[in-house]
Amino acid sequence: MNVAINGYGTIGKRVADAISAQDDMEVVGVTKTRPTFEARMAVSKGFSLYVASREKVAAFEEAGIEVSGTLEDLLVDTDLVVDGTPKGSGYREVYEKSGVKAIWQGGEKHSLTNLSFNSLANYDAAYGADCLRVPSCNTTGLLRTLYAVQISHGLDEVLAVMVRRAADPWDTKRGPINAIEPVLKVPSHHGPDVQSVLPDLNIQTIAVKVPTTIMHLHTVIAKLRDKATADEIVDLWKATPRIRLVRGAEGVTSTAQVMELARDLARPRSDLFEIVVWEDGVNVEDGTLYYFQAVHQEADVVPENVDAIRAMMELERDKKESIRKTDLSLGIPTAF
Amino acid sequence: MNVAINGYGTIGKRVADAISAQDDMEVVGVTKTRPTFEARMAVSKGFSLYVASREKVAAFEEAGIEVSGTLEDLLVDTDLVVDGTPKGSGYREVYEKSGVKAIWQGGEKHSLTNLSFNSLANYDAAYGADCLRVPSCNTTGLLRTLYAVQISHGLDEVLAVMVRRAADPWDTKRGPINAIEPVLKVPSHHGPDVQSVLPDLNIQTIAVKVPTTIMHLHTVIAKLRDKATADEIVDLWKATPRIRLVRGAEGVTSTAQVMELARDLARPRSDLFEIVVWEDGVNVEDGTLYYFQAVHQEADVVPENVDAIRAMMELERDKKESIRKTDLSLGIPTAF
Amino acid sequence: MNVAINGYGTIGKRVADAISAQDDMEVVGVTKTRPTFEARMAVSKGFSLYVASREKVAAFEEAGIEVSGTLEDLLVDTDLVVDGTPKGSGYREVYEKSGVKAIWQGGEKHSLTNLSFNSLANYDAAYGADCLRVPSCNTTGLLRTLYAVQISHGLDEVLAVMVRRAADPWDTKRGPINAIEPVLKVPSHHGPDVQSVLPDLNIQTIAVKVPTTIMHLHTVIAKLRDKATADEIVDLWKATPRIRLVRGAEGVTSTAQVMELARDLARPRSDLFEIVVWEDGVNVEDGTLYYFQAVHQEADVVPENVDAIRAMMELERDKKESIRKTDLSLGIPTAF
Amino acid sequence: MNVAINGYGTIGKRVADAISAQDDMEVVGVTKTRPTFEARMAVSKGFSLYVASREKVAAFEEAGIEVSGTLEDLLVDTDLVVDGTPKGSGYREVYEKSGVKAIWQGGEKHSLTNLSFNSLANYDAAYGADCLRVPSCNTTGLLRTLYAVQISHGLDEVLAVMVRRAADPWDTKRGPINAIEPVLKVPSHHGPDVQSVLPDLNIQTIAVKVPTTIMHLHTVIAKLRDKATADEIVDLWKATPRIRLVRGAEGVTSTAQVMELARDLARPRSDLFEIVVWEDGVNVEDGTLYYFQAVHQEADVVPENVDAIRAMMELERDKKESIRKTDLSLGIPTAF
Repeated sequence: MNVAINGYGTIGKRVADAISAQDDMEVVGVTKTRPTFEARMAVSKGFSLYVASREKVAAFEEAGIEVSGTLEDLLVDTDLVVDGTPKGSGYREVYEKSGVKAIWQGGEKHSLTNLSFNSLANYDAAYGADCLRVPSCNTTGLLRTLYAVQISHGLDEVLAVMVRRAADPWDTKRGPINAIEPVLKVPSHHGPDVQSVLPDLNIQTIAVKVPTTIMHLHTVIAKLRDKATADEIVDLWKATPRIRLVRGAEGVTSTAQVMELARDLARPRSDLFEIVVWEDGVNVEDGTLYYFQAVHQEADVVPENVDAIRAMMELERDKKESIRKTDLSLGIPTAF
Repeated sequence: MNVAINGYGTIGKRVADAISAQDDMEVVGVTKTRPTFEARMAVSKGFSLYVASREKVAAFEEAGIEVSGTLEDLLVDTDLVVDGTPKGSGYREVYEKSGVKAIWQGGEKHSLTNLSFNSLANYDAAYGADCLRVPSCNTTGLLRTLYAVQISHGLDEVLAVMVRRAADPWDTKRGPINAIEPVLKVPSHHGPDVQSVLPDLNIQTIAVKVPTTIMHLHTVIAKLRDKATADEIVDLWKATPRIRLVRGAEGVTSTAQVMELARDLARPRSDLFEIVVWEDGVNVEDGTLYYFQAVHQEADVVPENVDAIRAMMELERDKKESIRKTDLSLGIPTAF
Repeated sequence: MNVAINGYGTIGKRVADAISAQDDMEVVGVTKTRPTFEARMAVSKGFSLYVASREKVAAFEEAGIEVSGTLEDLLVDTDLVVDGTPKGSGYREVYEKSGVKAIWQGGEKHSLTNLSFNSLANYDAAYGADCLRVPSCNTTGLLRTLYAVQISHGLDEVLAVMVRRAADPWDTKRGPINAIEPVLKVPSHHGPDVQSVLPDLNIQTIAVKVPTTIMHLHTVIAKLRDKATADEIVDLWKATPRIRLVRGAEGVTSTAQVMELARDLARPRSDLFEIVVWEDGVNVEDGTLYYFQAVHQEADVVPENVDAIRAMMELERDKKESIRKTDLSLGIPTAF
Repeated sequence: MNVAINGYGTIGKRVADAISAQDDMEVVGVTKTRPTFEARMAVSKGFSLYVASREKVAAFEEAGIEVSGTLEDLLVDTDLVVDGTPKGSGYREVYEKSGVKAIWQGGEKHSLTNLSFNSLANYDAAYGADCLRVPSCNTTGLLRTLYAVQISHGLDEVLAVMVRRAADPWDTKRGPINAIEPVLKVPSHHGPDVQSVLPDLNIQTIAVKVPTTIMHLHTVIAKLRDKATADEIVDLWKATPRIRLVRGAEGVTSTAQVMELARDLARPRSDLFEIVVWEDGVNVEDGTLYYFQAVHQEADVVPENVDAIRAMMELERDKKESIRKTDLSLGIPTAF
């Protein structure tokens, strides 16, 4: 099963490594547009490097970085492509022409594929599909914790205020350095994005950008249909894949200590694939559930990409089996 | 009418300047505990400088900063003291012994005075009072916008998520530099603090700390009792004192541009006494009002302190007259 | 004496206010390209507002901001224009065609005018000149402290490492949020820029960008030709215009407290026109002078612009008189 | 060879992992003072956990974290202790009483042990020693690049301006958030600290603190005794252990991309043990060498700690062999 990564950037390079950790798929090649340190690193990791177009090959050769060909060349031997290019890059026709299946990321709209994917929520819908979209890190984060609660207790109404990191750690061009920036369109577009996977969920979202690079933080307020205690919700999440509980009382008081914990896990790039929920920040009062969760924007969608490949390529029929397999390979504690 | 400022710090120095701008009260002296540049500045502005206790006088003399005496000396000629000392400083007995009226700031609990003050909401309750508390910048910010809506349209239920600046601009010891820190006790204590002034308001609050120094930002979600459009709410706030409307469409996209606008107003310290609401961030959907407001944590309580003095000292019976007088003197556009 | 401000931005709006504070010149109009809050503020301050070109007028009218005409219209009644447009805007020919004198800012190269200006260093060279450039905030900052030392003690060799703020306070698009970015071209271009005013000064500079918005900080290492003690250097700077000494021992431990001090000065926009030197950070060891200075990037060139107008328009022959007049009008303590 | 880690914090936990990667030494146990997530992580990694004193055991038991005893118990089976406690913790007598060898970190002064260690510079002096100090991350960083140049070309005079990260990534209490803070004592104490290892080096240092968490950045200006080109210096460093060259031209424009590169290396905690030098930021002009280097403050001293253990315990006589062995085990490209 040959997978190509078109766009070896923040998501692309992580998905490439994750695929390499599987025994039922492999990376046939990755693409870069410029001869950067990341391109050099791709080669040194053993990935075959391709460039977007013929005229860009020279720049790589000048920099002494070995190139295996163009995207077109790469797609010849490809079964499925994971698109990690910037939003709106418009490779859809290229993939179709090459007859490869394709996965896009959350920068693209739902309407591009009409199938937005979450491993636990709709694995079956992706089985055998030709193309789909893994929604954004924020949407995936909300889906993880809310789907579990919706299934077990029901949710009448959800409000999520998303305090978003302004730039990724490597992205030094973007600000702000010292300001808080609200997304004035309120409710924000993230609510409908969650509904692209869970159409029946009554959810409103609000977004605010803040000067930090490491994680998003969500505050969620959810009216429960059926009664539940905070402990019951915590136990539910403990049994749900890709959720990690932490405690402020043990010194995890902010996203900084969450990332420190992630570094101690000794995973590549110190990635945290799980959504993090503060156990001592969960409260239920008058039927309303309150909680905080942190999302590692660079990493949480990685296991979803792996499962999506498995479903689309019909490598595994049972979603639980795929999730278990993916999580084992990535060092994520397995929930089943 | 002689007012002393005990604690010439972030709030104290601003209240001192605001009092100096009035014609019915004056600053009889201010106190500092250490001979810093702020102490030097107080003297150069013409304020008589006092120190907390006799043994600290020497340090000031050594630094060449002239001292007029101790707090005890200061209180002899004082009618009312504005306490700007750190929370829990415990001067209550000292003030009572000296027979002076006293105003505390939001660091203290409501129970210290059993009277929490907001100019528009309960000026009359403060008339002739011996002591009261001006609640925190955040609480004052919520009171300003919510009181107006509650009176005119009624409020069934309010949720405010407060994205708080982590430190004041001068405070270089406090972090975080790169993290988001939730207040895990949820709902937070700010809701009950708002209720210390508006006991009938059904409000829940959630707080998150972020690495910025300039302003807090609130996202407010309020279920209206009576129908209203976004335009009606905006018009209401335009007619309410100490609220300033800004527009993202005109380049005010974050707290940074709000502060830039404040600097252009050419007020001392570039202070913004008003609560700022984004006009193009106000929305009403299915009877729920959404809005963003920014709070200049160093400044918004300053006019409230002036009005409180006027009420406690019985200098003005009519709250609207006091508000108008204060606002005129501070360069705030008057609402009536 | 009619001065136009082409580009009412960070520098332009400050120069406009500074000119308004003089009795021998006035602002005939200012230009903006978009109907932002700053444009609205210009009008509310009483400045006549012009737009760069005819086709942009409509956008202002739509926003309800009154426009007096285009740049071309403005230049008709103008004697001198202060160009505050982004670097490389290329208005040179327009100004020449209109027969107005012109001042550019530090974003432009020395070669544009072949005359780079500093009030103390070369006022006479600007007398009657048709055009000149006020060099950047950093260059102006170095000139202020070094010129005085060069004149009185001689300087054999200077090294300045400039730790630069990454973005202005209002500029929320620019990063980095969490990184240090060296200017890899070393020595940097700032040394030759200082030499555009002081050609005989042997100076090398190095620049590093850091995630702060409020001030640049320079560390300067200068080999003195003649012997001097740290106290003598400090006394020298006390007698030099537009230098302000602060003390770490009094709590001014970083650029944050410098800005807090500036706010306490109650100037418009909390501007600090002076270069700030830490008195207890000045040291002379083995003939080498070490010191730290902080530069308020938005403001330090403002008095230089005013003096430059006065020299170019032959309003005042004596540089000391011009400096004294400018400083008095802006609230800067006068040195002579 | 049993090594204890007293203080399983930022340095301690990294040294523990590095020791575990060696075949000639092992971790006999680590200590914590509070039952935090890091304590829990230590246990889950298989380290035996000890606490500083008997009375603190209860807190760990309450938190459900298994404890093997106290520091005293741990030292019984220990040959050498690596002290990672906060500076001034004062365990010297405890270690002496237990008859264990000891390594302190750079928070302590040279005079504590009178032997400051750098693998390349003075391995032999540490052979068989009972105690020594591995100097700070900054000092170790300067020693790495300067020692090589001093040996091969000679150094007449060195100036290093150190732009320091203000807090470690996990440390959310410390600021500043938006300021630059000079160390007013100039030259700073770091110069003499470098001389504790290289007494003949004529070096002055200056330090400035900035709001970032990830790396220190040094700008170094060094007068070469013998002629050399920038290319020769670069080649020299390529052949020196624990130095990594990066290029701005390949997108490594700040400390942020350096850390991104480190993450791509897939080491535990994304650590960068090497000192990073920008190849296209190295310049030699008139016999003066200019360069920028970045220091990962959490990690660069880790290999030095491993070599120090090997020398003190007489496990390896040849410094090059020890360095090679350490580097191989930690994934650092070997220089010999």
